[in-house]
Amino acid sequence: MGKGLPPSGGRLVAEFARLPGLGPRSAQRLAFHVMKAPPERAHALAEALVEVKEKLRPCAECFGFAEEELCPICSDPRRDPRILCAVEEPSAVIPIERTSEFNGRYHVLGGALSPIDGIDPDDLRFDELIRRVERDGVREVIIATNPTMPGEATAHYLADLVGDRARVTRLASGLPVGADLEHTDELTLGRALLGRRDI
Amino acid sequence: MGKGLPPSGGRLVAEFARLPGLGPRSAQRLAFHVMKAPPERAHALAEALVEVKEKLRPCAECFGFAEEELCPICSDPRRDPRILCAVEEPSAVIPIERTSEFNGRYHVLGGALSPIDGIDPDDLRFDELIRRVERDGVREVIIATNPTMPGEATAHYLADLVGDRARVTRLASGLPVGADLEHTDELTLGRALLGRRDI
Repeated sequence: MGKGLPPSGGRLVAEFARLPGLGPRSAQRLAFHVMKAPPERAHALAEALVEVKEKLRPCAECFGFAEEELCPICSDPRRDPRILCAVEEPSAVIPIERTSEFNGRYHVLGGALSPIDGIDPDDLRFDELIRRVERDGVREVIIATNPTMPGEATAHYLADLVGDRARVTRLASGLPVGADLEHTDELTLGRALLGRRDI
Repeated sequence: MGKGLPPSGGRLVAEFARLPGLGPRSAQRLAFHVMKAPPERAHALAEALVEVKEKLRPCAECFGFAEEELCPICSDPRRDPRILCAVEEPSAVIPIERTSEFNGRYHVLGGALSPIDGIDPDDLRFDELIRRVERDGVREVIIATNPTMPGEATAHYLADLVGDRARVTRLASGLPVGADLEHTDELTLGRALLGRRDI
């Protein structure tokens, strides 16, 4: 990995290469950048790494990342506690927040149902979701699991579970904005047809 | 950058995004990976970052990265001190080592001549190279600067400077013009080494 490098340099290359999506060349490029950069830059990244592991814990309400008992969204009184958006992972919160179209709160399920991978309903935070729905008088649960087999299975399971307590909706499936019809796969196009709306 | 994330998570995204070649999405992906991973993984990367800044310093001979006074290559008695390979940056040593075609030592110039960027001969380690050539009775200086305008200018300048003291060669052409040494595959680079010519 670090042929021609002193041991500490080789270790940094190896540590970068453990991160997902970074091949050996990218890891090497990043390591050399750090080796050449002022120490403050390396220390700032090192501190940020240590800090997230020290400070972050699961939010007691939504199970997203929090520094206090509640995450910034669950502790924000302007966010409507009666609309919940159920996501697989905490990372899914970011793109939804970026849309500025959602003013409710989140519920991180912790994955998606996948019997083949041994992920059963007991492994996901369904009970906690039901408790929130009942306690807060939740009106709507928006299911924002991924449009994949496990994500769809989870959506259907959740719809059955919550359906008699609150409205259950699913993110629309269809053509991405800016897409080209000719290059859209038939599954997506089929969904777009089924989900067509009056204009 | 970290909308929907607690402050420490946002800082980690921001620190990753400062690394070269990582856009905001990649930075976010890496940060979430770290946030979900066991603390040991984050700490190992943090320690490796701190360690390189603590341990690495310029080799007293070649100006590559070293932990002792000399880098592993300059302190290796099996490496021929009478053949020097002049490179722009320490990172160029890695791909050349990977070819296994070179058994001499290196000299890191610290960049390439580029008057437009204000990089003059005084800014590069030419004097130090001449001293090594004279002291060690160097037979050959292989110029392995990048095949770019500044790299070529540096090669010609160096050939004039060293030409009456030792044989001066340049990596064979075959490297695509404008390419970057660090991203050249080892076969091409090995060929270029074997086919080096006098200039």
